[in-house]
Amino acid sequence: MTQFNQRNISMMMDLYEMTMANGYFAGQNEMKRVAFDVFYRKNPDNGGFAIFAGLEQIIEYVENLHFDTDDIEYFRSLNLFSEAFLDYLSNFRFKGDIYAFQEGTIMYPNEPIITVIAPLIDAQLVETAILTQINHQSLIATKTRRIVSAAGGRTVSDFGARRAHNVDAAVYGARAAYIGGASSTSNVMAGKQFGIPVSGTMAHSWVMFYKDEYEAFRHYAENYPDATVLLVDTYDVIHSGIPNAIRVAKEVLEPMGKRLKGVRLDSGDLAYLSKKAREMLDDAGLQDCKIFVSNSLDEYTINSILNQGGCIDSFGVGERLITAKSDSVFGAVYKLAAVEEDGIFVPRIKMSETVEKITNPGLKKVYRVYCKEGNAVADLITRADEIVDMDKPYRYVDPEKPWKNRYFTNCTVKELQQLVVKDGKRVYQARSLDEIRKFVEQQLETEIWQEEQRFENPHKHYLNMSPYYYELKMSLLHEAQNA
Amino acid sequence: MTQFNQRNISMMMDLYEMTMANGYFAGQNEMKRVAFDVFYRKNPDNGGFAIFAGLEQIIEYVENLHFDTDDIEYFRSLNLFSEAFLDYLSNFRFKGDIYAFQEGTIMYPNEPIITVIAPLIDAQLVETAILTQINHQSLIATKTRRIVSAAGGRTVSDFGARRAHNVDAAVYGARAAYIGGASSTSNVMAGKQFGIPVSGTMAHSWVMFYKDEYEAFRHYAENYPDATVLLVDTYDVIHSGIPNAIRVAKEVLEPMGKRLKGVRLDSGDLAYLSKKAREMLDDAGLQDCKIFVSNSLDEYTINSILNQGGCIDSFGVGERLITAKSDSVFGAVYKLAAVEEDGIFVPRIKMSETVEKITNPGLKKVYRVYCKEGNAVADLITRADEIVDMDKPYRYVDPEKPWKNRYFTNCTVKELQQLVVKDGKRVYQARSLDEIRKFVEQQLETEIWQEEQRFENPHKHYLNMSPYYYELKMSLLHEAQNA
Repeated sequence: MTQFNQRNISMMMDLYEMTMANGYFAGQNEMKRVAFDVFYRKNPDNGGFAIFAGLEQIIEYVENLHFDTDDIEYFRSLNLFSEAFLDYLSNFRFKGDIYAFQEGTIMYPNEPIITVIAPLIDAQLVETAILTQINHQSLIATKTRRIVSAAGGRTVSDFGARRAHNVDAAVYGARAAYIGGASSTSNVMAGKQFGIPVSGTMAHSWVMFYKDEYEAFRHYAENYPDATVLLVDTYDVIHSGIPNAIRVAKEVLEPMGKRLKGVRLDSGDLAYLSKKAREMLDDAGLQDCKIFVSNSLDEYTINSILNQGGCIDSFGVGERLITAKSDSVFGAVYKLAAVEEDGIFVPRIKMSETVEKITNPGLKKVYRVYCKEGNAVADLITRADEIVDMDKPYRYVDPEKPWKNRYFTNCTVKELQQLVVKDGKRVYQARSLDEIRKFVEQQLETEIWQEEQRFENPHKHYLNMSPYYYELKMSLLHEAQNA
Repeated sequence: MTQFNQRNISMMMDLYEMTMANGYFAGQNEMKRVAFDVFYRKNPDNGGFAIFAGLEQIIEYVENLHFDTDDIEYFRSLNLFSEAFLDYLSNFRFKGDIYAFQEGTIMYPNEPIITVIAPLIDAQLVETAILTQINHQSLIATKTRRIVSAAGGRTVSDFGARRAHNVDAAVYGARAAYIGGASSTSNVMAGKQFGIPVSGTMAHSWVMFYKDEYEAFRHYAENYPDATVLLVDTYDVIHSGIPNAIRVAKEVLEPMGKRLKGVRLDSGDLAYLSKKAREMLDDAGLQDCKIFVSNSLDEYTINSILNQGGCIDSFGVGERLITAKSDSVFGAVYKLAAVEEDGIFVPRIKMSETVEKITNPGLKKVYRVYCKEGNAVADLITRADEIVDMDKPYRYVDPEKPWKNRYFTNCTVKELQQLVVKDGKRVYQARSLDEIRKFVEQQLETEIWQEEQRFENPHKHYLNMSPYYYELKMSLLHEAQNA
């Protein structure tokens, strides 16, 4: 078994978290509470949104976080840490609170997806493991959604395991791909662990083993008469593969009262070959035989194949999905937002030469704002202690055009973060993977503007601020400037 | 612990391996021996070579390969497999032989890096797990080598954990990065598991927690007087970070008889800022204080920074290394090469419309050919039953120019594959990670032409054939053509 809750990944951290923790401990600051926000700065592939995935694994991880004797031994061997600190670590459990978006939420740059409010060391130690999980699964879910969208209703299966960046990337990548809209995965481990539907038929080796293509097809059909999908490009699609598939449909399957379920093309000009194959299958009375294609596909190649009239029912998408090849980095970061002093969380801001890299300080709330038609028109950041009243026109600040007077009218709001871990324990009922997947679909179909979903130059979702929050940020900027 | 040998990853496969296996079992072909080759077709980033990594994890995996009761239950739930086959699986252990390049070998497209000779089902079931491991680790080792090469002798540290494609990608990626020449990793789990040196100091949150930058630096220096590396870009590098670092060197460290070890820049114009910082540090008498930089680096940005005269001692490289962002897919494949019939391995060939996709059939040997100066001038494929005698001029065929009469003269050869698993058991002494890392270094320094190591338009390493092997391939092509 390899679920994170059955495997100790507590050592999944960067060393600096530990050197800082040791320093905080020496200064007796370890119980001081702080708030860290997780956010990202840019949608992958210059898209209009991203999909939040990986929350379930984060909760498993923090609930299980502890250091075994051999972990402590390892730390001792580095000669960096005090014995008192190592002793503290050996009894360490995560004691903080975590607020998070629901898994599957459509998300946008610069808003706090997750906020960790915890004693200083607790909050610092979870940085890397939280980021890795969000960065990986959100990346793959978002990429998959692009591919599913290009496929325009045709099924997309994850075939990426062999090109994934190791085992976890295949398994948790398959999970994320399912969230993003893939119909199934080829990966058995992901199928078993998460109940994702699995799919797969034959490799070229099956055809080559029997040497004679017809024999190979016949053996397969005899074994799987209800699920015969034949790989037709081992020798020559048009002159050998499709004719042999048709022969098997007629000579092997039809006498059993069965139909040929499909053929798969894995090389060559997929637009041309699929049209030609469709024609040959139709002429043979196999209109119900589906055409599956695979071979280095992504949203761009799928678009192109379909634009050329490719006759395709289903796409098997591998390496470019599972590595998010066109933009393989999701850049969520973990930034200090506030430090508790005398019972009050005092905001902290990170300056930068680059305006976009200046953080949003303090404890805050994030809302999604809906117009009366139900579309998500913007997201809104407020201070944590504000009340948002949309019953009357609500004035907000667009931080890119703060001089404008703007109002939400006839809108409703939904708070995006909810408490998921309290004092180190889960306080939220995990949704099933199917529920998360449907949640993604529902938001994209009913809430999120199509203009945000297009590939080219999508509409940029607004992240607005309450006047009170904007004022806080500006005053901290001025203060830092004059320091 | 998460080594593969302590964690069951036997379900890491694509479903088609299992549907084929069930079909082979039904046809009573499961004991028929076959040979599969692992090879890849293209070097990442259009480079001149790649580095073979991941062998140790492959051997752990095949030695441990077995199916637990709940795995069998899962397979049963799919309603695809016979009870007799499920029973067979419950007693399954890998019984084959594996021949492989030494881990760390410089490798080239289209040569068999690994050959699996095993009963049909055994050979088929290991496809995905073997490919995933090679594809991931070879990708990261090769990418890291490019970055190390650009850094021109300065140290390169892996800082990628948070942007890796999940936990394994961080941990095994750190292993591969070390093989490729990284000096250390920030990832504690990789440090503990593989003994890789770990490095790391502080995040922006340390500086922000104390609010006053000088205070933050002072606390750090007091805790780590022998390893004080200060992150100087939280507020303003030139006007605040460097002056405060200098002040700490003078006021905190020097009275203790210690020196400031370094400063780290993590944003902004690294070329400009590093030169400016160097000047300020030197003027303060801190010529021995090193400058560390990080922030979305790769071989191209490092080249550019150094070309502009950046004063940098060490690079922390994260997301673009750990995801191999510029080319995130390593495309090794697993192809049937021969099937045993009446005690003889009969070659199989996979045809394709694309010439490069036609496989190299049959049992074979691969040699590296060295000129008398010790350089690797070419690789050579022969049939398995040939003897290569380099004592006299050796005629070979360049398959891209088969009409030419060519000879190796005054050359020596080394066979590249060795037996590493026999009847399912390891028969080879694993090298330490440091030995593998040195082996890479040694090949690149003494054997591999510089012309193959440059980034732009590198020399293409020759993969030649013995006349006898070339004849075999051609005859199979003709036969397939006339089938």
